[in-house]
Amino acid sequence: MNNPTTPGIFHQLDEPDLITKWRHLWPHPDNQRVIRETLGALLDDYYHWHARWQPSSTAASPADDSLVHRSVILLRELSQRLQADSMPWPASGYLAHINTDVLLPAELAYFAAMLYNPNNVTPEASPVTTSLEYELSDDFCNLFGFDPEHGWAHLTSGGHAANYEGMWIARNLKCIPLAIAEMPELARLLEDNDLDRLCNLPPACIAQLLTQAAEQGQLDVLLAHARTLHLHPSLAGGRILVAHGRHYAWDKCADLLGLTLEPIEVDASMRIDVEHLRRRLFAHLQAAHPIVAVVATVGSTGEGSVDEIHRIVALRQECEQRFGASFFLHVDAASGGYYRSLLLSPTKGDDTSFASTISDQSAKLKPEVAEALRALNCVDAVTVDPHKCGYVPYPAGCLAMRERRFSWVIASQIKYFGQAQCGHMDFGPYTLEGTRPGAAAAAVWTAHRLLGLNWDGYGALLSGNLCTASRLHHALNALPPLSIDGYAHRFQSIYRPDLSIINFCVRPIERVESVEQRITLLSERIIGTPQQRHARTENMPWFSCNRMALQQIMPDDNNSTCETTVVRCCVMKPVTNEQFPEFWHNSLKKILERVKGK
Amino acid sequence: MNNPTTPGIFHQLDEPDLITKWRHLWPHPDNQRVIRETLGALLDDYYHWHARWQPSSTAASPADDSLVHRSVILLRELSQRLQADSMPWPASGYLAHINTDVLLPAELAYFAAMLYNPNNVTPEASPVTTSLEYELSDDFCNLFGFDPEHGWAHLTSGGHAANYEGMWIARNLKCIPLAIAEMPELARLLEDNDLDRLCNLPPACIAQLLTQAAEQGQLDVLLAHARTLHLHPSLAGGRILVAHGRHYAWDKCADLLGLTLEPIEVDASMRIDVEHLRRRLFAHLQAAHPIVAVVATVGSTGEGSVDEIHRIVALRQECEQRFGASFFLHVDAASGGYYRSLLLSPTKGDDTSFASTISDQSAKLKPEVAEALRALNCVDAVTVDPHKCGYVPYPAGCLAMRERRFSWVIASQIKYFGQAQCGHMDFGPYTLEGTRPGAAAAAVWTAHRLLGLNWDGYGALLSGNLCTASRLHHALNALPPLSIDGYAHRFQSIYRPDLSIINFCVRPIERVESVEQRITLLSERIIGTPQQRHARTENMPWFSCNRMALQQIMPDDNNSTCETTVVRCCVMKPVTNEQFPEFWHNSLKKILERVKGK
Repeated sequence: MNNPTTPGIFHQLDEPDLITKWRHLWPHPDNQRVIRETLGALLDDYYHWHARWQPSSTAASPADDSLVHRSVILLRELSQRLQADSMPWPASGYLAHINTDVLLPAELAYFAAMLYNPNNVTPEASPVTTSLEYELSDDFCNLFGFDPEHGWAHLTSGGHAANYEGMWIARNLKCIPLAIAEMPELARLLEDNDLDRLCNLPPACIAQLLTQAAEQGQLDVLLAHARTLHLHPSLAGGRILVAHGRHYAWDKCADLLGLTLEPIEVDASMRIDVEHLRRRLFAHLQAAHPIVAVVATVGSTGEGSVDEIHRIVALRQECEQRFGASFFLHVDAASGGYYRSLLLSPTKGDDTSFASTISDQSAKLKPEVAEALRALNCVDAVTVDPHKCGYVPYPAGCLAMRERRFSWVIASQIKYFGQAQCGHMDFGPYTLEGTRPGAAAAAVWTAHRLLGLNWDGYGALLSGNLCTASRLHHALNALPPLSIDGYAHRFQSIYRPDLSIINFCVRPIERVESVEQRITLLSERIIGTPQQRHARTENMPWFSCNRMALQQIMPDDNNSTCETTVVRCCVMKPVTNEQFPEFWHNSLKKILERVKGK
Repeated sequence: MNNPTTPGIFHQLDEPDLITKWRHLWPHPDNQRVIRETLGALLDDYYHWHARWQPSSTAASPADDSLVHRSVILLRELSQRLQADSMPWPASGYLAHINTDVLLPAELAYFAAMLYNPNNVTPEASPVTTSLEYELSDDFCNLFGFDPEHGWAHLTSGGHAANYEGMWIARNLKCIPLAIAEMPELARLLEDNDLDRLCNLPPACIAQLLTQAAEQGQLDVLLAHARTLHLHPSLAGGRILVAHGRHYAWDKCADLLGLTLEPIEVDASMRIDVEHLRRRLFAHLQAAHPIVAVVATVGSTGEGSVDEIHRIVALRQECEQRFGASFFLHVDAASGGYYRSLLLSPTKGDDTSFASTISDQSAKLKPEVAEALRALNCVDAVTVDPHKCGYVPYPAGCLAMRERRFSWVIASQIKYFGQAQCGHMDFGPYTLEGTRPGAAAAAVWTAHRLLGLNWDGYGALLSGNLCTASRLHHALNALPPLSIDGYAHRFQSIYRPDLSIINFCVRPIERVESVEQRITLLSERIIGTPQQRHARTENMPWFSCNRMALQQIMPDDNNSTCETTVVRCCVMKPVTNEQFPEFWHNSLKKILERVKGK
């Protein structure tokens, strides 16, 4: 079946050595010596550097080294506690959260850079790691298909900060047209100063206005005036439209920024219902309600679903044609952004022939997911977390933007810092956060250079997760009915996964009373009690819970308003074809024991 | 002069071995072997743990180890870049920013915990490091004099996030009384539902109302209703009153949260002018303008000044007595919070006899600074950055609160996490941020356990900085006049430092035209060109710039509205009495060369 032009990853998925190939990126007896020596060398380099800048400290003298002894004792205690009680990410049965053990070289890179204590708030405090972050800015622009000349990206403490910053920018952008209309020296830049129209001007037009104001030397005055207009009656409490299954950060975000969150329904695939979105958008645009942003998700945290970005992009074009009005389109791809590397060739950008060269059915992206990922190049901003599917240590979030000019609307001046390195946009004045660890940039830089943001690199690793999740989905749905407490039940994996999270439950086959309570009970049994979870063993499966509308499970039922607890299962490390049968056998055995209350 | 009961630190300051005592916390040839071995042991522990959870990975097989080779090459490249161009924090002449090389044991603790990749968003992802953070919550409560039973503290990515969260809480608290007034089932909790009074109810009263609502099972409904009231005419655009020399994060914060920043004048010591603050507060309270918060600073980033917290606390009492109205009092002690450890005995809490037992004049805190630090136990919330004066790696900020109930107003529900460990308040639902690295908690925990938050621990280290800054201040002001370009000039250290930052300039003795430009020119010469700064040598002094009102430098002059550039100098590592003469000689030589344009 394999086409000779198929990218390498899809061959590998049919081979038993996928994990073998990658396993040296994680601890293994074969790499322990070289990793230990490399770590020691990184420390020695630091000592060497330190002595250069503090020669006096090298003088021998009778020092009190009791502090060193106390340090060693404390560190030993810490290490023992970590070994005794840490969550078992490396266990193949660990499927509870979007957590895993991360790339060893990224850990070492983090450590190496951390020793020099760089702070990427300003190049004055981080000459090296700020340079690495400039390189990362290009990496992320390329990953999402933004032009690195006009776009930019920077690291954040995580997805929360990136989402907050995206919405802060979106909200402040909305004040620009109104501010221009109120400034006699700039008002002629507007073709039309009808307030209703100005409140939903397309973001690209606003960027253009910013440039025009800058050309006239009026940018600072404009920005200062715009900041006084948040509470203007035609802008206050602007809306964020986001899927009902949104990440909890969005509720925080709306509250923080004084915005109104409007949940949009999800479809059977747990994706935003684009028809419902269209109806709501049209209603708001007609009524001149300010839309701060539409937020789509690539990899929802609960379900791993991928909203149809391409359809939302088309919808935006439709709004512009029909109403001359538009909205900021932000994508929360904290979990899913790295999956776009499956579309990228190691030698060039987007591979347009991608869809036609896939052969392994269980591994390939669904066509609409591929299309959604491809369309990311048309959105305004993307949140992505390298500390999730980039396999680097915390903290490493990222905000990437198609237009770096957007960030002008949140700029601040810092009196005691110098200027950015030539030709680059400084990070400090244009970010929500101030201090940011340069070590995070070093870790992400190392991981990107090592693996590559393409289908032979991250794409290969992540497609293994797709494959494993897909197999789990089919395996669950293929199970025979089982009798529990005298009733016939069956396993149901609730939707075919877009990425690598599945949600499943055990449900009665016949209609029973309080079916949602029954499903919740059985889900809770499968997840296990805290005591069961405390008695950890290698083969034990680890799950988490999720809440879901009963209608998603039993669409024909009338209990549409009920919610029930289901079992959430996140695949963060691939299981090979060869290992899958044993893995499934072990997991299922425990699941069956638990669901029967044993 | 030394009183026999004087705490140990002040003896040490007169001895040459302050740095000797502490130097094993930083790299030194004598500790290189033991630190390297400890680091290796931490890595081995991790390999051991990893093999326990992934036994199959230990099987020998012909693996492709080219990835390991590529990793080693990449890490070597990274290390070389770091050594070549990192900022020279260890150099005694590095005085530019609030940056330093940090405690080695904290670096190792960070690394050890990072290997296990804990995420303190939930104990489910960080059983060990969440426990460490619970211990830290108590540490910070004790540091600031809050009751750990009612207060709490948690780590953040830095001071920005802590300040944002503090103001988010303060803003949301303001909506509670109004929400209660609008809810028939709760309205009787209010003695008086006059809107003017409700908009500035004292925070302690609001906390009490929250408890009463919770007792009636109405908390969730109350919080949901309160969140709809931000834009209510009697609350919208509430004010933050903060000193004119505020950190730039406060401008971002006000913009983010839709609040109005009102700058309060500073006095000759660069502290908030409490009389001006009183006038503004009285005017606002009389007019029923909502005051979201008064923000005081302990260690301003530009000048290291410490606002008189005790006077602001007294002012708050006065407001409550006079108007029955009050405000949330937040302290930005990002830089200065750890200095409160100078007031704490190793064996008990606040030492009330502190002021009377000090003998070393150059080292002791100014009495009003000590009083300000002591009064922190009366404020509502404190931001402090362990990654500044806690000497731990980034990212480690912290928000500490007197009343954990305050955080209820920002609570969010997270569907797929379980509950907090027994008896503790979970971090995830009550913080601005989501993912937070557990490794940061491990680093701060280790540093606190190693040094101690008392006058023999952090207090000793930080008092050395006070002493060095004070000596620099006096040394600069004692310099004889010098002739530059034919005019007589003198050095001026602009204020006597509260903590360890000084600002100085070289100014003409006689009145000259454009004096602010003259001062700026000479400051810029002293700071040096980027080329000069690039040619780094060990003894070279490193400074940063700051902008300051000319009036602070020449109070009798009429150019009160002009600003000028001055030289900012941050002491982050003490220089001993013995080393000071050589340090000063080397620094002054370079300063004189530069100021004369050589």
